[in-house]
Amino acid sequence: MTYKPAFGDIAHIGHVELLTPKFDESLAFFKDVMGLHESGRQGDSVHLRAWADYERFTLQLTRSHTSGLGHLAFRARSEEVLQKLVRNLTENGISGEWRPAELGHGRAFRFASPDGHALELYYETEKFKGAGEHTAGFKNLPQRYIPHGIAPRMLDHVNLLAQDIAAIRVFFHDLLGLRVTEQIVYEEGEMGCWFSATNKSYDMAFTKDKSKAHGRFHHLTYRMDSREDVLRAADILTERNHFIETGPHKHTIGQSFFLYFYEPGGNRVEIGAGGYLILDPDWKPIVWSREERAKGQAWGLQTVSTFHTYGTPPAEE
Amino acid sequence: MTYKPAFGDIAHIGHVELLTPKFDESLAFFKDVMGLHESGRQGDSVHLRAWADYERFTLQLTRSHTSGLGHLAFRARSEEVLQKLVRNLTENGISGEWRPAELGHGRAFRFASPDGHALELYYETEKFKGAGEHTAGFKNLPQRYIPHGIAPRMLDHVNLLAQDIAAIRVFFHDLLGLRVTEQIVYEEGEMGCWFSATNKSYDMAFTKDKSKAHGRFHHLTYRMDSREDVLRAADILTERNHFIETGPHKHTIGQSFFLYFYEPGGNRVEIGAGGYLILDPDWKPIVWSREERAKGQAWGLQTVSTFHTYGTPPAEE
Amino acid sequence: MTYKPAFGDIAHIGHVELLTPKFDESLAFFKDVMGLHESGRQGDSVHLRAWADYERFTLQLTRSHTSGLGHLAFRARSEEVLQKLVRNLTENGISGEWRPAELGHGRAFRFASPDGHALELYYETEKFKGAGEHTAGFKNLPQRYIPHGIAPRMLDHVNLLAQDIAAIRVFFHDLLGLRVTEQIVYEEGEMGCWFSATNKSYDMAFTKDKSKAHGRFHHLTYRMDSREDVLRAADILTERNHFIETGPHKHTIGQSFFLYFYEPGGNRVEIGAGGYLILDPDWKPIVWSREERAKGQAWGLQTVSTFHTYGTPPAEE
Amino acid sequence: MTYKPAFGDIAHIGHVELLTPKFDESLAFFKDVMGLHESGRQGDSVHLRAWADYERFTLQLTRSHTSGLGHLAFRARSEEVLQKLVRNLTENGISGEWRPAELGHGRAFRFASPDGHALELYYETEKFKGAGEHTAGFKNLPQRYIPHGIAPRMLDHVNLLAQDIAAIRVFFHDLLGLRVTEQIVYEEGEMGCWFSATNKSYDMAFTKDKSKAHGRFHHLTYRMDSREDVLRAADILTERNHFIETGPHKHTIGQSFFLYFYEPGGNRVEIGAGGYLILDPDWKPIVWSREERAKGQAWGLQTVSTFHTYGTPPAEE
Repeated sequence: MTYKPAFGDIAHIGHVELLTPKFDESLAFFKDVMGLHESGRQGDSVHLRAWADYERFTLQLTRSHTSGLGHLAFRARSEEVLQKLVRNLTENGISGEWRPAELGHGRAFRFASPDGHALELYYETEKFKGAGEHTAGFKNLPQRYIPHGIAPRMLDHVNLLAQDIAAIRVFFHDLLGLRVTEQIVYEEGEMGCWFSATNKSYDMAFTKDKSKAHGRFHHLTYRMDSREDVLRAADILTERNHFIETGPHKHTIGQSFFLYFYEPGGNRVEIGAGGYLILDPDWKPIVWSREERAKGQAWGLQTVSTFHTYGTPPAEE
Repeated sequence: MTYKPAFGDIAHIGHVELLTPKFDESLAFFKDVMGLHESGRQGDSVHLRAWADYERFTLQLTRSHTSGLGHLAFRARSEEVLQKLVRNLTENGISGEWRPAELGHGRAFRFASPDGHALELYYETEKFKGAGEHTAGFKNLPQRYIPHGIAPRMLDHVNLLAQDIAAIRVFFHDLLGLRVTEQIVYEEGEMGCWFSATNKSYDMAFTKDKSKAHGRFHHLTYRMDSREDVLRAADILTERNHFIETGPHKHTIGQSFFLYFYEPGGNRVEIGAGGYLILDPDWKPIVWSREERAKGQAWGLQTVSTFHTYGTPPAEE
Repeated sequence: MTYKPAFGDIAHIGHVELLTPKFDESLAFFKDVMGLHESGRQGDSVHLRAWADYERFTLQLTRSHTSGLGHLAFRARSEEVLQKLVRNLTENGISGEWRPAELGHGRAFRFASPDGHALELYYETEKFKGAGEHTAGFKNLPQRYIPHGIAPRMLDHVNLLAQDIAAIRVFFHDLLGLRVTEQIVYEEGEMGCWFSATNKSYDMAFTKDKSKAHGRFHHLTYRMDSREDVLRAADILTERNHFIETGPHKHTIGQSFFLYFYEPGGNRVEIGAGGYLILDPDWKPIVWSREERAKGQAWGLQTVSTFHTYGTPPAEE
Repeated sequence: MTYKPAFGDIAHIGHVELLTPKFDESLAFFKDVMGLHESGRQGDSVHLRAWADYERFTLQLTRSHTSGLGHLAFRARSEEVLQKLVRNLTENGISGEWRPAELGHGRAFRFASPDGHALELYYETEKFKGAGEHTAGFKNLPQRYIPHGIAPRMLDHVNLLAQDIAAIRVFFHDLLGLRVTEQIVYEEGEMGCWFSATNKSYDMAFTKDKSKAHGRFHHLTYRMDSREDVLRAADILTERNHFIETGPHKHTIGQSFFLYFYEPGGNRVEIGAGGYLILDPDWKPIVWSREERAKGQAWGLQTVSTFHTYGTPPAEE
């Protein structure tokens, strides 16, 4: 019998590898302004984590000639499910290759999204246990909260760009079991799709790339404990002259409270809070029309134009 | 092959039936002070919901000669899983009976916890769609937020008392697939167990009943969007002379921000916010010792003695 | 010796009379959506108050053929100071007249701002003491907090438009003793002036009217206890389809967190939180240039164009 | 004519000199955990400030053989008022001496409270303007907000102990013009008095010393921007194993949200937020009876016994 991937097979988004042409500035930004913690170095990469991330890292920052996504990794529910998912991908004509264990996690199956983004599936992982100054004050947390910089709680989600959103939706839903939570569908086709592997309103989003480029990155998001913390982050960024693209404001889609800015390498980063939880196992995707999207964000803020056009690496004209 | 229940088979806690010997006062409290919405009446019960609960109701308030739990219902992931779970219960010697559909949900299998609490499993449900004044302003929410009283977002969890916590743990984990997230274990045995059906740090807790009674209720909890909202609720209760038992403060276990009070029928109610999300599919239960619990709650507040002794219905001396 | 008005002579802004051509809708809005409390009626007016306002009312809503300011009243520090201030106004050629006591306060001296706004000075006042459902839960507060609608804490400030900001500044500082806290000064002249009678960063602002009209009203502001409450208010307004002009965001000037909307009669209303306190008795006004203002609000939001042009009553073309 | 001090003559509390027998640990605590900034050193003292304090310092930490208050300084409204206040003190038999300018402020008149606390009055001061990393992002603030440690906004108030509260009340109200905002009065006499020099609900409090000691210190308080920030501070302290005496909770008196802890030298420190503003120039003190105080803090928390007995330096048995 054919294996049919189900919601829960992918446990969650594991980590994002982000490329930066300004490695030193980007690293300083993520450590000193964002308040992430360095938890490893390997090759051209530095590995970083937020204080409540349970794995060794959630952000792999890699020195490169350009910006954009290195790869996006998902943790499977178990070793058995990992193998089922990979077999199923292969049976459906998705080629890929197993890569050996590296810093922080076991072997991973590397393959590509329909738009060319490098993806990885893995199961074995190294769980983080803070030591020294980072020793957890509470044993149900991986490390101590360090009040330095923005200091987000954990990786929340990733947003990528793609040419064919319908193909993306079928790929992640049918072959990987992700739940489709919300969609933007215009007369001319699908413009965006929000996916979830957990009870959060979304863990990954794809939106239509208005350029002709492939495999582009829109943003990654770290989660704050409160909207008040997002507002505090806006002050921190402003006072250090870091460009805020838009926000703080509330998304209509996903209902999360957002703040968007660019790290020195050019990649868009979001800090968020809130959003809704989906408990319903039969959740039907919410579909938004052009007319509904024209109303702007939740409280009426019009989406800034760069949000629709800017991705990394920058598309060639 | 024997069916082995897995995390995810129970999608979430569906609703709580609460008994009250002061029906009119309890109903007024839940509507006017708590800010829940009436969404149905049947027999001796009024059905209530928080504004973001997706089902028709999460609280069934029932006129009775006593206080305490009527029953606690869980929604299964699918009709197929419901049948597997029921067959598995039966094969493991847990008797029960199918009850016909009633207001808000389809047929349900009624059985008992090892301590005698009435439990139900169901799958078919009526999803709520607000109308009139309650029409949702956002199509990804079931109804509009009505700023009246405490106005919690959704049902969060239930805490019951039992004589044999180890038996409870085995029952809910092995037969129903719930994840054990945290435990209190003393030299003399297990004192508490926290369970999750979702990514939340817990959806249900059982703690040791220090009386000799069975089937008792400790509290139910509705979730606020922020800790600031919990503080606001403390003012609302205080200004109306409703007894606050303890809080606002932060739990060490579960890391949630709490406020406990009694509704007029004598049942303990909690308002909470925060807590952590569990993404790790291999989560190992956190085990707390007597010495660790002696430190009190997260910021050092000693747990009030009634919290260890008061349940509903009151135990006979 | 000539009397020289000093900071503190005017204790605070007392109340605002607001005209509305849609009296019933405006009244319903202020009571049901804003959550203000009716505390009196007289003639064509209904008197309203926020739950922590210590006087009988802070908003007098008056049925009219148009929108805009009826009058703005200031409470003097004492009867003696009231008389000194009035004598000083008269000696400086500012005419006016004493009006008899009316609902909520004693006799008042009515005069005009350099731009023609009706102003009043009074001292005797009726302090509010909530009764019945409004009885204060704490004796250091005038009434109970009623969780209904937006439910602001107290009147915060008023913003008016004028043709000659320099004249306004001299008038309120030299003749009435208000502190100038911040200013906008362009090459062509003064564009805005913020005044304070208290330790708050401002209690009144005047900005340049870009139309040729006189005596116009820009907005009045009620104060929330937290920024989280302002965000909550944005949801309440959005879900009821009330137009949000701009925000939530943070002002550079005054550092307060804002949300602007229009009441049904067309007058602009603000909900705010935060801002800074001025303890320094020698505070020097902060002066902002055109270049500095071009940066937009605190986190980079460009000020919406209507904010610069829309006032009430609407100016004739 | 005799000078009659008025509300406003003292502009605000300027700074607190705190003695510590564990200077290095205390300094490390105030800098690294509290997140205050060092702004000077002189003799045995290090001077510290919160990011929004407008003067050069608000806390002078002094190496000593004991804990407790060094002195408490008030800034007068003007040089002229300073001289009037000093002359009036002298005419009323309060002796003292002028001390030359020192780091951060001009000459000061040093005298004693009726209970023997060292007090100072000054007017000339050095206003702080952050440079380098501390350069303000907004010109209406003295320096940049640095997200490090608890990072309070500004000094809020001081609480001292005294044997004769009635004498203290007369002294500060009649001779220095402070407003009495709230009082605790039992059958046997006055037990506490809250004073304000500003629109805040209090800037200084005196409570009855239950020991026979004189001149003792109860606590000093720095102000956070939000209650959410106070909750965040509780985590920071807990995770570093700093003893929290009580809170977070809300005071009935003053309505402020509090968190009390001890710095390494033994002095009690508070972090607070909220409270009410007094606009009424005729404010009548709120008087609390023993019965009312027996209700505990705002939400029912009983005041911990050490709060009634512990002061610094510790009283001899």
